[in-house]
Amino acid sequence: MQIKKFRKEQGMFLVEGAKSIEETFRSDFKIHSLFLTQEYRNCWDAELRKVNINPEIVTEDDLIKAGTLKSNKAGLAIVMMKEINPVYPARGEYILALDDVRDPGNLGTIVRIADWYGIKNIACSMETAEIYNPKVISASMGSFTRVNCFYCNLETYISSSNVLSVYGAFLDGQSVHQTEFSSEGLIVLGNESTGISSKIEKMVTAKVTIPRFGSAESLNVAIATAVICDNMKRFTLEK
Amino acid sequence: MQIKKFRKEQGMFLVEGAKSIEETFRSDFKIHSLFLTQEYRNCWDAELRKVNINPEIVTEDDLIKAGTLKSNKAGLAIVMMKEINPVYPARGEYILALDDVRDPGNLGTIVRIADWYGIKNIACSMETAEIYNPKVISASMGSFTRVNCFYCNLETYISSSNVLSVYGAFLDGQSVHQTEFSSEGLIVLGNESTGISSKIEKMVTAKVTIPRFGSAESLNVAIATAVICDNMKRFTLEK
Repeated sequence: MQIKKFRKEQGMFLVEGAKSIEETFRSDFKIHSLFLTQEYRNCWDAELRKVNINPEIVTEDDLIKAGTLKSNKAGLAIVMMKEINPVYPARGEYILALDDVRDPGNLGTIVRIADWYGIKNIACSMETAEIYNPKVISASMGSFTRVNCFYCNLETYISSSNVLSVYGAFLDGQSVHQTEFSSEGLIVLGNESTGISSKIEKMVTAKVTIPRFGSAESLNVAIATAVICDNMKRFTLEK
Repeated sequence: MQIKKFRKEQGMFLVEGAKSIEETFRSDFKIHSLFLTQEYRNCWDAELRKVNINPEIVTEDDLIKAGTLKSNKAGLAIVMMKEINPVYPARGEYILALDDVRDPGNLGTIVRIADWYGIKNIACSMETAEIYNPKVISASMGSFTRVNCFYCNLETYISSSNVLSVYGAFLDGQSVHQTEFSSEGLIVLGNESTGISSKIEKMVTAKVTIPRFGSAESLNVAIATAVICDNMKRFTLEK
């Protein structure tokens, strides 16, 4: 389950730790098998009856050996992947588009941010980190159950989306403090080292920038996502 | 250098990779010893003459073995620590106060965010991650050279700061979109799992919250820092 190839063949992925497993119980993801410590077996009695699963009891040591976390007091679930098809922004809706965000920790954090700001869908380029990577699942803090990540050719996706407002994060755009965000659209974030590719840049209708007051060269892509979403929400709600 | 105890005894810390070493050259940090690949030895000829240091030439393999990074094409520097004393916010200045931010990656990212927003000082509780931890240095992307982190009893620090506006990040405060930030003050961020401690909570004059539109339970502390700083800057500049 820790290797992408095996995950794909099996159509299953790993969910580890109390918070993530709890969110999986509440979601429409189907749990294939479940390994819990005695403590969590007892404390999740109602949930287990609801999802109708009989967990295997294991020790914390077993969990560390079988999984990817450094500490895990709760358990480990093997969960069935879902087929997620591309969708386009509905009226009043924003979708994030990730142009080669490679780091699993960044993708997981972006999924959590999307969930905070009520963004339900993320369009990922084929080179973006895999949503079912255990590091992505873990960094999303359970938000992977509520935010759909679909993978596509981003160029084709944007051009077929017919969306009028495609915002892109650049270092030389207009300030997000002054941007008059429309009520629906796409927000494009680029690769950690190279930013948004030139192919996708051409499809961006408004370059936006987080105003800088000091000397750092850039901000981490997940940080930029949060600040842009926060400004978009502030503006569209004030309207 | 990877172990805190040895770093303290020696008064030195590790700086790894091209970006961080380049920023160290430009700073007032004193380099004790320097190990570079032949390629970077050649490309930093002017810088080396300026700082008057003769590097030892090593291979990329040597750098991986001696350091903490998974890939490092440039080099590794052993740098003298600086004694950093507490300072209080001057007129028109903000200082961040970290109440037990334990994760080195979070602290490094917060240092980078502070540098982006022109915040020059961070007050850290004694339990906050150590600024000279290699993971902090690396996550700060060179910003550790421009942002001063000092360690103190946070309670004593805040009470002796005589600052009228102490903002604290909570889940039940007023919206940062509506907060009328004063022109100077402290912004307090809490521990990753437990938030701001009750002792410090009593000293907070305004609880602030990032408005939530979806279902994630919380935001990562570095993400919260960025969004709060962004709103503070937007408001104080619009005034």
